Amino acid sequence: MSVEDEAGAPRLAGGAVADDIGLLLAKLRAAGSLLNNKALAEFGLRERSYSVLRLACSGLEPTQRELADFLALDPSQIVSLIDDLEGRGLVSREQGRTDRRQKIVLATPEGERLHAKAEVAMKECETTQLSLLAPGEVTTLRDLLRKALWG
Amino acid sequence: MSVEDEAGAPRLAGGAVADDIGLLLAKLRAAGSLLNNKALAEFGLRERSYSVLRLACSGLEPTQRELADFLALDPSQIVSLIDDLEGRGLVSREQGRTDRRQKIVLATPEGERLHAKAEVAMKECETTQLSLLAPGEVTTLRDLLRKALWG
Repeated sequence: MSVEDEAGAPRLAGGAVADDIGLLLAKLRAAGSLLNNKALAEFGLRERSYSVLRLACSGLEPTQRELADFLALDPSQIVSLIDDLEGRGLVSREQGRTDRRQKIVLATPEGERLHAKAEVAMKECETTQLSLLAPGEVTTLRDLLRKALWG
Repeated sequence: MSVEDEAGAPRLAGGAVADDIGLLLAKLRAAGSLLNNKALAEFGLRERSYSVLRLACSGLEPTQRELADFLALDPSQIVSLIDDLEGRGLVSREQGRTDRRQKIVLATPEGERLHAKAEVAMKECETTQLSLLAPGEVTTLRDLLRKALWG
């Protein structure tokens, strides 16, 4: 382990690098991924497949293209994730209701059930990961991240 | 492109998934990495090598082990990054002053000069990436990310 100060922060957190928001995002993100993927393993999911399933459960009826754009994955990655979930009976591809040429991705009842359980585990991970923040600070962090992305 | 609302947010941002802090971190992080690596290409650097160089310039005299821990990289990755920077004359491995068995990584004058230029470009990337936030909000975001990591 690295040398840490009295509060448990690594010594290198005292440098200017620890003011770089990109680095802070990367560190928090990496720690969260480890935690999330460990918890999701119980459900046969990983962060990406969980996000696809979650969006398929959202009522928003996402198209494959919207999923790829939103999750910043290339089309072949999203097809492979959907294929896997479809093969397990968790989602199905349906004809779009507004644009019939676009396939939308919907959760099956089995997918909804699995999602409900995984969602509880993910909320626990978020609470664990952000345990150093007060509840109001978690809300502020969420609002700022949303605003940075979408205004 | 995906369907967007009037403000430019993708339609899928309206779902519960857009409240998941892990997903928000991942999206902001992915967008930032693209921007940063594009800007760093001019200096023959990428985010990871820039972070190593930045820490070598910090005056904190990091050991290889501290760099690996802080940047969440495995030892072989950090050795390869340092080898590359050392081969380019940007950093050197020196004997630790407090613990002589530990090698520390220090920037050369050439490394300091390259870092100073890359740092300016990285600050511009941060400003660009967070242009939807007010300056005070950027400070709050930084403080919350630091607190979430280190208390």
